Amino acid sequence: MSEEGFFRSRWVDRPAHVTELDPTALPQGFRAAGVHAGIKPEGLDVGLLVSDGEDTVSAVRFCDNALVGAPIAVTSEARTDALRAVLANSGNSNVADGARGLETARASQAAAAEALGIDPELVALASTGVIGRELPRDALTAGAQACAAALGPDADDFTRSILTTDKGPKRACLEVALPSGATVRLAGQCKGAGMISPRFATMFCFVETDGQLEHSTLDLLTGVCVKRSFDRVSVDGQLSTSDTVIAFANGASGVKIEPETADELALGEAFDALMRQLALEMVADGEGASRVARVTVEGDATAVDKVARAVADSPLVKSALLGADPNFGRILQSAGQALGSGTPFVVDLEIEGMQVVSAGAVIDLDGDAWRTLERSVEGSEVEFRLTLPGEGGEAEVFFSDLTHEYVTINSEYST
Amino acid sequence: MSEEGFFRSRWVDRPAHVTELDPTALPQGFRAAGVHAGIKPEGLDVGLLVSDGEDTVSAVRFCDNALVGAPIAVTSEARTDALRAVLANSGNSNVADGARGLETARASQAAAAEALGIDPELVALASTGVIGRELPRDALTAGAQACAAALGPDADDFTRSILTTDKGPKRACLEVALPSGATVRLAGQCKGAGMISPRFATMFCFVETDGQLEHSTLDLLTGVCVKRSFDRVSVDGQLSTSDTVIAFANGASGVKIEPETADELALGEAFDALMRQLALEMVADGEGASRVARVTVEGDATAVDKVARAVADSPLVKSALLGADPNFGRILQSAGQALGSGTPFVVDLEIEGMQVVSAGAVIDLDGDAWRTLERSVEGSEVEFRLTLPGEGGEAEVFFSDLTHEYVTINSEYST
Repeated sequence: MSEEGFFRSRWVDRPAHVTELDPTALPQGFRAAGVHAGIKPEGLDVGLLVSDGEDTVSAVRFCDNALVGAPIAVTSEARTDALRAVLANSGNSNVADGARGLETARASQAAAAEALGIDPELVALASTGVIGRELPRDALTAGAQACAAALGPDADDFTRSILTTDKGPKRACLEVALPSGATVRLAGQCKGAGMISPRFATMFCFVETDGQLEHSTLDLLTGVCVKRSFDRVSVDGQLSTSDTVIAFANGASGVKIEPETADELALGEAFDALMRQLALEMVADGEGASRVARVTVEGDATAVDKVARAVADSPLVKSALLGADPNFGRILQSAGQALGSGTPFVVDLEIEGMQVVSAGAVIDLDGDAWRTLERSVEGSEVEFRLTLPGEGGEAEVFFSDLTHEYVTINSEYST
Repeated sequence: MSEEGFFRSRWVDRPAHVTELDPTALPQGFRAAGVHAGIKPEGLDVGLLVSDGEDTVSAVRFCDNALVGAPIAVTSEARTDALRAVLANSGNSNVADGARGLETARASQAAAAEALGIDPELVALASTGVIGRELPRDALTAGAQACAAALGPDADDFTRSILTTDKGPKRACLEVALPSGATVRLAGQCKGAGMISPRFATMFCFVETDGQLEHSTLDLLTGVCVKRSFDRVSVDGQLSTSDTVIAFANGASGVKIEPETADELALGEAFDALMRQLALEMVADGEGASRVARVTVEGDATAVDKVARAVADSPLVKSALLGADPNFGRILQSAGQALGSGTPFVVDLEIEGMQVVSAGAVIDLDGDAWRTLERSVEGSEVEFRLTLPGEGGEAEVFFSDLTHEYVTINSEYST
């Protein structure tokens, strides 16, 4: 944990009722492990996370690429509302390997289940790494067995076993004080350094709580929080074939959290802050990223999302972000591209709170204002705010800059 | 003209009835000039192209960004079917400058018209360069007057005056032998080195013929050829605010080309080859580009275009192209992203004619095949072919690689 603590971004506040614990800790009744199984040349590459409680409920979300990996295909057919464990690996994503890939996924699911003494359909799978290569089946199943024998109350090795191009693990464990007076723990472990880089990246997030929740409550929380976190970030606009979010609630704390109560709301706030900060960690660790930005778009509800995504995914906007260049022209151009011809371009733009465009026309700035503007985009986080005509919509996207290192990472490694 | 001639790409054949002339030449009855007017610190920055024939017909196409420059707004209100001239400048695109920008555009149109002794509504405008800065009105009008005094039968200075980050002029003059026995000339001058880079790039293409065509014929030819050329290229997926294509036919050859004749077809073939090669020159000169690729997608008519564009615009595919890495995983991932979840991913992929994916699963290649594949992507032009389920559709997109130089160009220049 850095000295700054987990909630480092100005865009995510630590809720007042949330306390940070050791980031490698887990809620009660969860255990984890990570081992080197030989899928990667070196380093931890297979991890296992387990909930001991038989009444554990779970919720899952996957990417919506037409091409998904065998682990997602197999997990989708499992008991996604009552998962007890996830077997994860890095180094190979088991994507586009046809029937062989599916067999490997099922074999690894069975091996983990056997070692844990539970039904295979209670075991989720998550693989990340190269696409279109055979995932070594024996290494993965042996890794699953080794993990099952090494399970402990700490998630350190587990979080390391799922990393690819990530600079380091992304994780937190929080104590959440509920209005009822009880406390529960909430932890999350995440990986991802590009929305996708088929050899290296892909994003996973595993979240655990020892609160007792109904499946429908956990599913709702997971869905809402994913939409506000991992759905709102972009490193390179590329959708993975393997993105996986799994939340578990095992009730080990004995604290029951009923739907539509103040306790549910308080837990939801913690969930939201946890997942938003984890998502921001991914952007900040985006392949080669040196600077993170948020673009917020207000106005016409049918347009705000596409405009925000167009700005966030523009390589020109991202290059300007690298250069600490307050280049509003590129923001206007990408917004105009998303809006399309025939739409009146009556757009306001603020950069770090300074208005630079009014009703589609650039405001003349004097030298002092210009220098203030230039300095305002030199920090580690930069804020852009667009206002469109119309009402009812607001969308935000967090994105990283486009750097030489991104090009190096994605061009120089050979298949 | 390079020793290879104009038709350098393997993707564009010189039609047998077409002969290359001096690339700076113009068809009969066209004159051009370019001057330094002080919009850029140095170099030619204002150009004028004029057709002397009063019966000249014209056809125009613009980008469909919601935000377009004042030159497009003013030209759209002119006699777009009977234009006699285009006044172009580089160094400033006159975009997002509100009423002041519109006044400058109209003043420059009037100045060119007066110097040429024609009606202002017969003068088109085209500006390229920085967005959101005042275009110096006096410099542009003085440049228009200086050009009008310097007009000659050669397009060399004109083509140089419209360049921004382009490495050099893109132009050709062709003699087209028609089946009827007559010949006409067809010339084109183009600029563009990014689909858009708001300070520097933007694409223009001006095409002239001394054939006599009806407006409707010229408009049809222009529309069809733009769809097969400038609509099918991408450097960075970014749509300009200033893209402009203008075709002129002045009849100065005395050769009348009737619609739906063999002569029209022959001229159309030349038009098509000219504009496709000019479009490919833009991609090859894409900011920082070192290699050009074509992706062709066959199958479901509702899917082929979005899949081809997704592959062409993926920074991961483009980085792999830079690295001469036959990375089919990234091509599958971007295709799957475009298809979206729920679509069966039954895709075949060939790279340079070698099949590497069958029905969505990667084919195991032995070492020799792998080395052949690797060598096949090392050339200056690389070909990818995807086949989707379904029928009736075929789409192609030409694209450049993503390079360190692209990042440098777009991050290091200050506003």
